[in-house]
Amino acid sequence: MKKYIAEFIGTFALVFCGTGAIIVNQQTSGDLGLIGIALAFGIIISAMIYIFGNISGTHINPSITIALAIGKLTTKKDAAFYISAQILGAILASGLLKFMFPQNLTLGSTIPSGELLQSFILEFILTFFLMLTILGVTAKKEFSNMAGFIIGLVVTGIILFAGPISGGSFNPARSFAPAIVSGNITALWIYITAPTLGAIVAVLVWKVFNKTE
Amino acid sequence: MKKYIAEFIGTFALVFCGTGAIIVNQQTSGDLGLIGIALAFGIIISAMIYIFGNISGTHINPSITIALAIGKLTTKKDAAFYISAQILGAILASGLLKFMFPQNLTLGSTIPSGELLQSFILEFILTFFLMLTILGVTAKKEFSNMAGFIIGLVVTGIILFAGPISGGSFNPARSFAPAIVSGNITALWIYITAPTLGAIVAVLVWKVFNKTE
Amino acid sequence: MKKYIAEFIGTFALVFCGTGAIIVNQQTSGDLGLIGIALAFGIIISAMIYIFGNISGTHINPSITIALAIGKLTTKKDAAFYISAQILGAILASGLLKFMFPQNLTLGSTIPSGELLQSFILEFILTFFLMLTILGVTAKKEFSNMAGFIIGLVVTGIILFAGPISGGSFNPARSFAPAIVSGNITALWIYITAPTLGAIVAVLVWKVFNKTE
Amino acid sequence: MKKYIAEFIGTFALVFCGTGAIIVNQQTSGDLGLIGIALAFGIIISAMIYIFGNISGTHINPSITIALAIGKLTTKKDAAFYISAQILGAILASGLLKFMFPQNLTLGSTIPSGELLQSFILEFILTFFLMLTILGVTAKKEFSNMAGFIIGLVVTGIILFAGPISGGSFNPARSFAPAIVSGNITALWIYITAPTLGAIVAVLVWKVFNKTE
Repeated sequence: MKKYIAEFIGTFALVFCGTGAIIVNQQTSGDLGLIGIALAFGIIISAMIYIFGNISGTHINPSITIALAIGKLTTKKDAAFYISAQILGAILASGLLKFMFPQNLTLGSTIPSGELLQSFILEFILTFFLMLTILGVTAKKEFSNMAGFIIGLVVTGIILFAGPISGGSFNPARSFAPAIVSGNITALWIYITAPTLGAIVAVLVWKVFNKTE
Repeated sequence: MKKYIAEFIGTFALVFCGTGAIIVNQQTSGDLGLIGIALAFGIIISAMIYIFGNISGTHINPSITIALAIGKLTTKKDAAFYISAQILGAILASGLLKFMFPQNLTLGSTIPSGELLQSFILEFILTFFLMLTILGVTAKKEFSNMAGFIIGLVVTGIILFAGPISGGSFNPARSFAPAIVSGNITALWIYITAPTLGAIVAVLVWKVFNKTE
Repeated sequence: MKKYIAEFIGTFALVFCGTGAIIVNQQTSGDLGLIGIALAFGIIISAMIYIFGNISGTHINPSITIALAIGKLTTKKDAAFYISAQILGAILASGLLKFMFPQNLTLGSTIPSGELLQSFILEFILTFFLMLTILGVTAKKEFSNMAGFIIGLVVTGIILFAGPISGGSFNPARSFAPAIVSGNITALWIYITAPTLGAIVAVLVWKVFNKTE
Repeated sequence: MKKYIAEFIGTFALVFCGTGAIIVNQQTSGDLGLIGIALAFGIIISAMIYIFGNISGTHINPSITIALAIGKLTTKKDAAFYISAQILGAILASGLLKFMFPQNLTLGSTIPSGELLQSFILEFILTFFLMLTILGVTAKKEFSNMAGFIIGLVVTGIILFAGPISGGSFNPARSFAPAIVSGNITALWIYITAPTLGAIVAVLVWKVFNKTE
């Protein structure tokens, strides 16, 4: 039970602080800028990993949970409860942000700028690298104290790159909640499929790499 | 005795460098920007943890001290002396900044922009996550070399998010000193109550999480 | 075989995310800025080191591979395959970026601003320091969990400094691929010779330093 | 002998990259900004500590060397040679920057903006905290892999705060070389006396704190 609550709180925190930073940036004509938003997302993810890593593994991302389940690194039962908790946490965060900033119309939704294919490729490839980072940095005992920091740092880095094009989601829950709560579901399918495929391919590649030759 | 001096110097450093950065930003038409200010706060907190962590635990924040006392993680006697030392250190810092920058009228006070409720919620929830981070990252021996860095990093992250709305305090001493010294005590109560409640709830949640099921 | 694939994927990631960040910055009138670009490069390099460090050592840079081979820290056979894999990965990345952003004319090529000698000196000296950092931080077992982060951080730092002058390459593969794919081969020789010489001198200096006196 | 060469190269790197970043920022109408400059300084210092920490301890700052000598943590003979090497390395860096950027008139000199007393206080207090950080983070074996990073980070933080007022030196060699080479020796005495006094007081405070009560 605790681990599901951990996923709920962790995804709440991610969506509240990350999409909240986007909203605050809009309210204040760009005080944070892309770098501030990318840092806010990355840092809150790092925090959640240090807080809940021992309890749930801190997925706080349905794509990661699905990919780990397909790779048999998480049970199917846990995957179902994790994803439910993630979506609930994300929706609660978007709902609270709507209450706090009723004048904001998009609530930090990810909306592709330019062609959809650009956003699809970015979300796919960059989630692939994010998932590889998670697998690499959690594979070695000696990296355990760095893992939370590095994973958050990589999220910051890929938001800097993809943010102006795809919005920089890499996480269906993070895109689903503001889209549903604000009613902007345009191209939402990209943020559900592309990161999930990227994460799955990463798990499969990782398994091939770590078979003994 | 040493630990009270550590809290005094540490809170002096936090207020001197953090609110000092805000003042310098105002004097120079925004050379630092929100990101520079958020980094200045976070980095000086990290420094103080590496310097005084072994001596006092480096609370340098009355909300954290009160929450730890309620959670029986600090004695009541220490809590009283810690908070006194924190407030004295903060006031000395604000006084020195007033001496150095007499033309500055707010001395880095936190003043809510927009509705008070927005600031209250942000200060409450983000101090809740900050306190959870402190508890999580100091709970495991293997994280001990990262703790100071991660706690400062999280302060940077939550200032980026909440800064443009609430000022990003999460610390009654940090808000009290510039308010008193500059005479801007508007809404000061928010920065005393909201972070303290957030930190207390975090300690209680953490205790539930770490009971054996 | 795995290690060559690791170099291929790693250099693909470096060029895709790093020069991709430059392209996105151009498409969006500077959302990332120099700091965002420097962070994108540094962070993706850190990620690749945590992912592939155990497999290939994550050179993802022909200058580093050549310098290590000259210093007898890599075999000649590995060096030849590593460099081939790096160049292929880089070209694939530039090709994909050309497909995604057909309107972009330079694809993140490094083009000296001002006199060529300035760029040559910067690429030479800063790759010298980068190579020393790699040798220093990987020399001690206790630094192993920090190595990936510090190497990426130093790349961020030297791009901040040299970026506006030389473009901040320090890596022939990173400069070669966008130059060839976009047809901007002006001054490409600088980005092949200067970093390679800098890395070689660093290995030789390091060897002298670590002989017992 | 090696350790003196290490101090020479390390201080060369610090002045070349740090003041070089200031020069590049001036040549390019502010591409780096205060944050980019502060990061360049901090990152190159971190790099030098990971490279030369085992060899010389990486002081690369006469104030630190003098304070450690007074605290009997360095021999007087070493202190004399360290400081000589630091000044020579710094001057070589400023000379090379003058050769590369002959049109630049100040070469990154630190020149107080506003009243001298403001700059004196900032240089004094912030070097005091920098020196305490160095002592704190190198005192515990378990922090050894973080020390280089944290010390560089703190330099970044205090440059962000003090940069617009004092220029953010905290290091006589870093201020002396560009001043002498460019002929801007106004207020140079501040950058020699204030950081040195700050570092000395920090060593004395640290010794009192670490006496058994």
